Amino acid sequence: MLTPAMNETLDRIQEWQEPLLKDLHQNPELSMMEERTRGIVTERLTDLGYEVHQIGGGVVGVLANGEGRVVLHRADMDALPIREDSGLDYASTATGTDLAGEQQPVMHACGHDFHVATGLGAAAVLAENREDWSGTAVMLFQPGEEFGDGARTMVEAGLVGQVPAPEVCLSQHVLTEPAAGKVAVAEGPVLSTSQSMTVQVFGSGSHGSMPHLGVDPVVLAAKIIVSIQTLVSREIAPGEFGVVTVGSMHAGSSANVIPDSATLKLNFRAYSEEVLQLLVEGMERIVRAECEAAQSPREPHFETIAEYPVTDNDPAATAAVRSALVDHFGEDRVEQMEPATASEDFSIIPDAFGVPYCYWGFGGYAEGSEVSPNHSPKWAPDLQPTLRTGTEAAAAAILGLLTNGI
Amino acid sequence: MLTPAMNETLDRIQEWQEPLLKDLHQNPELSMMEERTRGIVTERLTDLGYEVHQIGGGVVGVLANGEGRVVLHRADMDALPIREDSGLDYASTATGTDLAGEQQPVMHACGHDFHVATGLGAAAVLAENREDWSGTAVMLFQPGEEFGDGARTMVEAGLVGQVPAPEVCLSQHVLTEPAAGKVAVAEGPVLSTSQSMTVQVFGSGSHGSMPHLGVDPVVLAAKIIVSIQTLVSREIAPGEFGVVTVGSMHAGSSANVIPDSATLKLNFRAYSEEVLQLLVEGMERIVRAECEAAQSPREPHFETIAEYPVTDNDPAATAAVRSALVDHFGEDRVEQMEPATASEDFSIIPDAFGVPYCYWGFGGYAEGSEVSPNHSPKWAPDLQPTLRTGTEAAAAAILGLLTNGI
Amino acid sequence: MLTPAMNETLDRIQEWQEPLLKDLHQNPELSMMEERTRGIVTERLTDLGYEVHQIGGGVVGVLANGEGRVVLHRADMDALPIREDSGLDYASTATGTDLAGEQQPVMHACGHDFHVATGLGAAAVLAENREDWSGTAVMLFQPGEEFGDGARTMVEAGLVGQVPAPEVCLSQHVLTEPAAGKVAVAEGPVLSTSQSMTVQVFGSGSHGSMPHLGVDPVVLAAKIIVSIQTLVSREIAPGEFGVVTVGSMHAGSSANVIPDSATLKLNFRAYSEEVLQLLVEGMERIVRAECEAAQSPREPHFETIAEYPVTDNDPAATAAVRSALVDHFGEDRVEQMEPATASEDFSIIPDAFGVPYCYWGFGGYAEGSEVSPNHSPKWAPDLQPTLRTGTEAAAAAILGLLTNGI
Amino acid sequence: MLTPAMNETLDRIQEWQEPLLKDLHQNPELSMMEERTRGIVTERLTDLGYEVHQIGGGVVGVLANGEGRVVLHRADMDALPIREDSGLDYASTATGTDLAGEQQPVMHACGHDFHVATGLGAAAVLAENREDWSGTAVMLFQPGEEFGDGARTMVEAGLVGQVPAPEVCLSQHVLTEPAAGKVAVAEGPVLSTSQSMTVQVFGSGSHGSMPHLGVDPVVLAAKIIVSIQTLVSREIAPGEFGVVTVGSMHAGSSANVIPDSATLKLNFRAYSEEVLQLLVEGMERIVRAECEAAQSPREPHFETIAEYPVTDNDPAATAAVRSALVDHFGEDRVEQMEPATASEDFSIIPDAFGVPYCYWGFGGYAEGSEVSPNHSPKWAPDLQPTLRTGTEAAAAAILGLLTNGI
Repeated sequence: MLTPAMNETLDRIQEWQEPLLKDLHQNPELSMMEERTRGIVTERLTDLGYEVHQIGGGVVGVLANGEGRVVLHRADMDALPIREDSGLDYASTATGTDLAGEQQPVMHACGHDFHVATGLGAAAVLAENREDWSGTAVMLFQPGEEFGDGARTMVEAGLVGQVPAPEVCLSQHVLTEPAAGKVAVAEGPVLSTSQSMTVQVFGSGSHGSMPHLGVDPVVLAAKIIVSIQTLVSREIAPGEFGVVTVGSMHAGSSANVIPDSATLKLNFRAYSEEVLQLLVEGMERIVRAECEAAQSPREPHFETIAEYPVTDNDPAATAAVRSALVDHFGEDRVEQMEPATASEDFSIIPDAFGVPYCYWGFGGYAEGSEVSPNHSPKWAPDLQPTLRTGTEAAAAAILGLLTNGI
Repeated sequence: MLTPAMNETLDRIQEWQEPLLKDLHQNPELSMMEERTRGIVTERLTDLGYEVHQIGGGVVGVLANGEGRVVLHRADMDALPIREDSGLDYASTATGTDLAGEQQPVMHACGHDFHVATGLGAAAVLAENREDWSGTAVMLFQPGEEFGDGARTMVEAGLVGQVPAPEVCLSQHVLTEPAAGKVAVAEGPVLSTSQSMTVQVFGSGSHGSMPHLGVDPVVLAAKIIVSIQTLVSREIAPGEFGVVTVGSMHAGSSANVIPDSATLKLNFRAYSEEVLQLLVEGMERIVRAECEAAQSPREPHFETIAEYPVTDNDPAATAAVRSALVDHFGEDRVEQMEPATASEDFSIIPDAFGVPYCYWGFGGYAEGSEVSPNHSPKWAPDLQPTLRTGTEAAAAAILGLLTNGI
Repeated sequence: MLTPAMNETLDRIQEWQEPLLKDLHQNPELSMMEERTRGIVTERLTDLGYEVHQIGGGVVGVLANGEGRVVLHRADMDALPIREDSGLDYASTATGTDLAGEQQPVMHACGHDFHVATGLGAAAVLAENREDWSGTAVMLFQPGEEFGDGARTMVEAGLVGQVPAPEVCLSQHVLTEPAAGKVAVAEGPVLSTSQSMTVQVFGSGSHGSMPHLGVDPVVLAAKIIVSIQTLVSREIAPGEFGVVTVGSMHAGSSANVIPDSATLKLNFRAYSEEVLQLLVEGMERIVRAECEAAQSPREPHFETIAEYPVTDNDPAATAAVRSALVDHFGEDRVEQMEPATASEDFSIIPDAFGVPYCYWGFGGYAEGSEVSPNHSPKWAPDLQPTLRTGTEAAAAAILGLLTNGI
Repeated sequence: MLTPAMNETLDRIQEWQEPLLKDLHQNPELSMMEERTRGIVTERLTDLGYEVHQIGGGVVGVLANGEGRVVLHRADMDALPIREDSGLDYASTATGTDLAGEQQPVMHACGHDFHVATGLGAAAVLAENREDWSGTAVMLFQPGEEFGDGARTMVEAGLVGQVPAPEVCLSQHVLTEPAAGKVAVAEGPVLSTSQSMTVQVFGSGSHGSMPHLGVDPVVLAAKIIVSIQTLVSREIAPGEFGVVTVGSMHAGSSANVIPDSATLKLNFRAYSEEVLQLLVEGMERIVRAECEAAQSPREPHFETIAEYPVTDNDPAATAAVRSALVDHFGEDRVEQMEPATASEDFSIIPDAFGVPYCYWGFGGYAEGSEVSPNHSPKWAPDLQPTLRTGTEAAAAAILGLLTNGI
């Protein structure tokens, strides 16, 4: 339960928190390229009195406040290669270089700007009201969530051992549901397992007027995209959750040159490893067969570019978080979270520490308003009460867990 | 017929012509970006005593050598956005910025480097042997043939009026047939009509795990590519020449983001405008229907990016060219040209002057050797006798037409 | 609870029940063509002392046995147009004329032969042990379940009014799960809603060598079948139950004649009317668009050939049935029924009477044995204990409901 | 040149020839089932004084009329499994049993009724005017042209040896071009080579609601039909004649049962064996690959059901036929025949005798009228002057070759 002093802190920090949100939104950074954001986080945490660690592209602030439990809260910092079309007056026009060295438009289309701003807000509530709690808060800001590599990178860079070991890890996400001003939480699997892959298929280049002298990789790739629709429509059980998305296809540059290859990027999702494997293996089988059908001169190339585990909320940790949220918001503003089709690498962090976790959502759009989903170029959650709600939720959950444990 | 002195010139110029060919090959420039090549041509023509005109991105050298006929010879200068894989020791590793501002690999994969080098070689033969002929030679070097805009650009920039009006126009192309050392010519239609288009189809972006909240333009584009195969297989008469190639497809950048649109570049070819129109209209019909099937939220966008007329050799001009080539090479080295599936914008120039024309080919690969076609990343004609044959053919044809008319 | 005398009856009737099952299996009849089966049912019910009604292609036996409740039990009688490949020594080699007048192979591939035999078995248990219960048993044998028309036909022929009004309706199905010897029951939606449609698309006939003079309905139909896969893979939410199956496609008869039309039969399933409608409307949208893409000369023709409601077990009726089954079989042999993807027209009957219902399953294959699903040409449940279990389940449930109500 | 007496015969025979044409049209018979037609031909030839032979389902009338050359004229008798939609007052409503034992609608949609009637008309002209010519006329009426088996069957039944050996063979076909009243002839290849095949692909049956438990052969077959479009659009050279038609597809019978297999009938055509082989092998490659992609449980089954050679008119025989036709019709009514996309088994007969042949066309539709092509349900050539022109052409060519040789 937040104290009256904490609520005053929440009012006071709006003077820097709202400008910070807009600044982050206008200066988004691609995955594993979050240099500017990391600087802002580092500076703010330092100012607030946290002991700050730079680990694997991320930042961790530790606030040791006497005896007690250790609780870790994680926020992610990266943005997406999407050209913003939100109409916001603080919309991004930024471009950035991605890991492959290519120039891309960049947009905070998944709300990680809110995660950074609410994470820093909660850090301020804790730091400016140390007399009201005891224990240790570990505020972790993670890079590269969108490609599933950021949490792993921090773990591989030695996260465990460099910071106090928590007994529970927490994280939250701004969502289209529940409505703005509300939060939602549920035990069990709330986010899917996911695998992203690059598939390159090979043709044999020729002048566009001489298709019979080459092998057309554009038609080959198109046949593959059309054919793999049956993985979901025919190969998994009706009603079984499974998704195959081809998010990117690229081949050639001229109208009249048949190129040598085509490259697809695919994403697979499921709530079980068995179904995920069925989808991935089915895709590989279809791709190989279509390459044979097309007399492709080379084996197709498959590469996994991101993998996410299932996010499976611990029942006890979830009960404790729900209790803290209900204490703060009241029953009416704490909904049952629907399992989402998206994925997260958050659970890699508690898994590295061997501790339970809970992941919940807070609303971004006013009840009944038109909604653009996460990852849409039109994604544009209401600045308020979204920012305030997220900050309160993070602070309430951290404090609840520090105080009562799970 | 070339004089003995002209043959001596041909021997002598090899000392700069072969290095020039390699230099051009290693420094290819994309269509309408031929700045360096234009400089080389200008300098060489000026040195040879030509009066040089800069017109619409091209260069024209005029050599007025007394009374007589006016003959125009045209060579094209541009290269293609292809990453060279020829294995040549003078292979290109160049990149260049295309008209859309994008960085591309660049390669002389269509032999225009040979066209520049043989055109300058023929210009030298004429300039250094003025006592052996009279009349006016107009040596035109054209930009941007690959997108069909270069000839038009020169005409629109005032070509007619700035240079002496020819009574016939000539041009040649290095080809995989006939064999190196030979030439080939035919009257009537020898190259197809062609239209290149960009087609953009629109979806509605979403997170890759939520396809039902968006419209997937990748699947839409793939269905279109697969579906338009029936334009050739079912809609034109069997045996009717018609080609539909999708040379380029691009959509999205992340595996797990459904993008907002997909862009295809298509090339259509035929030997008649009726068939070309059937193919283009059929494509538009299928694209619109697939957009309806997919509930695409916006009308597809169609844009023509290049158009080529049929290249239809004038019978009298062809007879005169053939006669000149047979005089020089002998019957054995002058073959009947097969109508090719490629297209050219050359005929726009004679059409602007209202005069007849002849377009012929010269061989690039030794008899019986393995051949990589024009526009292949492996395109690599033998340097000799290709360069010498092309230079002789241009010189012989120009001199034949200057001397005997058509 | 079955009395000892009833168990003796169960033993005794095996002498006619097993031969009856084999006879029905070898003499299957297509939907709404169940003349022979109807005769067998009528004769047996009459022999047992039931008052027999012929209603809308079905048979209803009424056994009024004093004061008390009225309970209706329904069994379906029809077989499928499938060529049996079960390897059973009593496999069907029968053919039959379907409603469209076409000759078809026929097979009891959905186990309705078991339903008839167990229904008559339960009828015998009731008739031969009248002293052990009172009330009225209504034993209904329905035609045409496979096309969804049989229950409706009986209702339209005046079922309500011709037989005593029940206070609850019961029905059961032999399934691949639970194992043979067990039963399974669950409250709520246990079977999907379903719609079957015929779609005819039109081309324009031509000689096979002149596709350009016609419109090819075979390619059109194939494009449609491929394209509608995205209804499930992209248009409904991942994890939402929805199925689109094209069970039949027919066009043309000669290799070298392009026919005038192609006919598809499609089946759609969902657990909600909204999703069913999305699938059906999406199919119609895609079919119309593909017809436009193909320049089809006529509007496609859509016809609904079968519709099934959701089967949604009443909680109280289900509790009563479960209680009766547990009393008879013990807890170990009564499992929780998984919602199935199939559909039934059973609920049309209780809906016509305005009374609750319960529908349960009994196992057909021994634990751990290899299983061929319903509607497979290899469908072959074990004769025993399947037949005995189904008979006991029907008798126990009917008696339980007659005795205790819901 | 027909004599005045012959022209009188032509006038006179119309009283039976026109009713005969209508009778044949209303009583069409499927390939190798031409019993009634054979009877009519036998009776008429016998009445005219021909010595009649029954050979392999066909009829041959021999008229030995003194010394001289032997000329064979062949007509085909069979009809197609097409439901007539011509609107003619003598349209067929007939059905017939095909070789596979299936009931089919039947229609003379390829004009073989005209071939029989004109063949018998020419036979009458010859028989009733024996004083005007000498030599031997062999009037052959062949079964089963549509499946390519009839000529072969007659040869295998001993045609050669049973009838006088001709020095040239002749045949003609009613066509949509030239116009009615005209004939058309050309030397060299005038009809394509052709191969018809049955392809069966295997799935694994299941209930329509459980696609994941089976393998869907309907979707597999549809993917194949769509995929093989690229054989023509991408694998043969643009402008090369090649056709792949799927004239028939059949799978399943119920909407909600996934069947075990799907059967396609395909026809392939080309003007060269190399291209034909490329198409057939390409189809097999694609079918096998799609079966792998679909995890089909059995190898696909391929069976050739008909093969036709190229029809390649002998230059000398063609010159002689043209000369005879020009003598009779005048230059204006004898056009240059365009190579047609259809195929014929006629050439199997002259090949069996080892003699040259000529095959020509006669027009069926008035100049400028709307035309329904051969094999269309709307095929309906004008009765006259078609019938008269065909009779005159056959008589003139036979007499010309008998008189002047080749």
